[in-house]
Amino acid sequence: MDKLKNLENLFHHELKDIYSAETQIIEALPEMEQQATNKNLRRAFSQHLEETKLQKKRLEEIAEILEIDIKGVTCEAMQGLIKEAKSFLKEDAEDQVKDAGLIAKAQSVEHYEIAAYGTALQYAKHLKHNEVVDLLNQTLEEESAADEKLTKIAVENINLQAKEA
Amino acid sequence: MDKLKNLENLFHHELKDIYSAETQIIEALPEMEQQATNKNLRRAFSQHLEETKLQKKRLEEIAEILEIDIKGVTCEAMQGLIKEAKSFLKEDAEDQVKDAGLIAKAQSVEHYEIAAYGTALQYAKHLKHNEVVDLLNQTLEEESAADEKLTKIAVENINLQAKEA
Repeated sequence: MDKLKNLENLFHHELKDIYSAETQIIEALPEMEQQATNKNLRRAFSQHLEETKLQKKRLEEIAEILEIDIKGVTCEAMQGLIKEAKSFLKEDAEDQVKDAGLIAKAQSVEHYEIAAYGTALQYAKHLKHNEVVDLLNQTLEEESAADEKLTKIAVENINLQAKEA
Repeated sequence: MDKLKNLENLFHHELKDIYSAETQIIEALPEMEQQATNKNLRRAFSQHLEETKLQKKRLEEIAEILEIDIKGVTCEAMQGLIKEAKSFLKEDAEDQVKDAGLIAKAQSVEHYEIAAYGTALQYAKHLKHNEVVDLLNQTLEEESAADEKLTKIAVENINLQAKEA
């Protein structure tokens, strides 16, 4: 890797990391959707998969604006988060309990993304990349909405069902 | 692992995962503190190390209340988050840029914990473990405060300095 001399370099580094994270999420979500039993949860995973594909494209758009190569980095943090989710999928669990746990793992992933996009947005603002700020803001809002949706499904349905299971 | 039959089982599973995460953070924070150059950031890492040690003890207290063994699980997500932070420490970067990046990595860790404690708290409320709810709430407030402190240091000092570097 080249030396990180300034915030612009760090910003590009962060964007590459997020790009790798989104790519890994796109690969992992279908299995999470498949293993979920609650219909609302399956739908939430399916919708978030489509949303994530758009977010990945949005990052490619940002890379074009900044004239950088966004590929070639592996986000080790997301590797760990997904490894943890996959280990959970292997647990022997009642359906509703598995759903509740799946939501928790998905929310860990969402929170990672919210932190990462929040950081990238802060950098973009400092660097006055106004067009990029708008694009990152869109994604950040979608990620927060996805997280809230999961919380709603968890609170309203699954935790209570799991308690009764 | 035993079958996860109900929310109580899942709650214990989540607590063990968090306990492993806290243990890993306690091991990782001294190196992050050592590599930070900004005085406020070093102090924030140092204070958070002491806070994390107390949070780990608080989890041991919770384990006593619930009469469970809290050890023996490895949080793979935190392994990934810390691996990513350690890879960043190896990057060749200007001091202020390294500080800015270190904050981003630390905030990823904080957000993981906020998500995990948030989930555990939700389970504890459903399960009416009132004493445990209070303990988890204390930690969750500390984690949120630690995250806000890092954001403040980032916004007020480091990002702007990194921009000028």
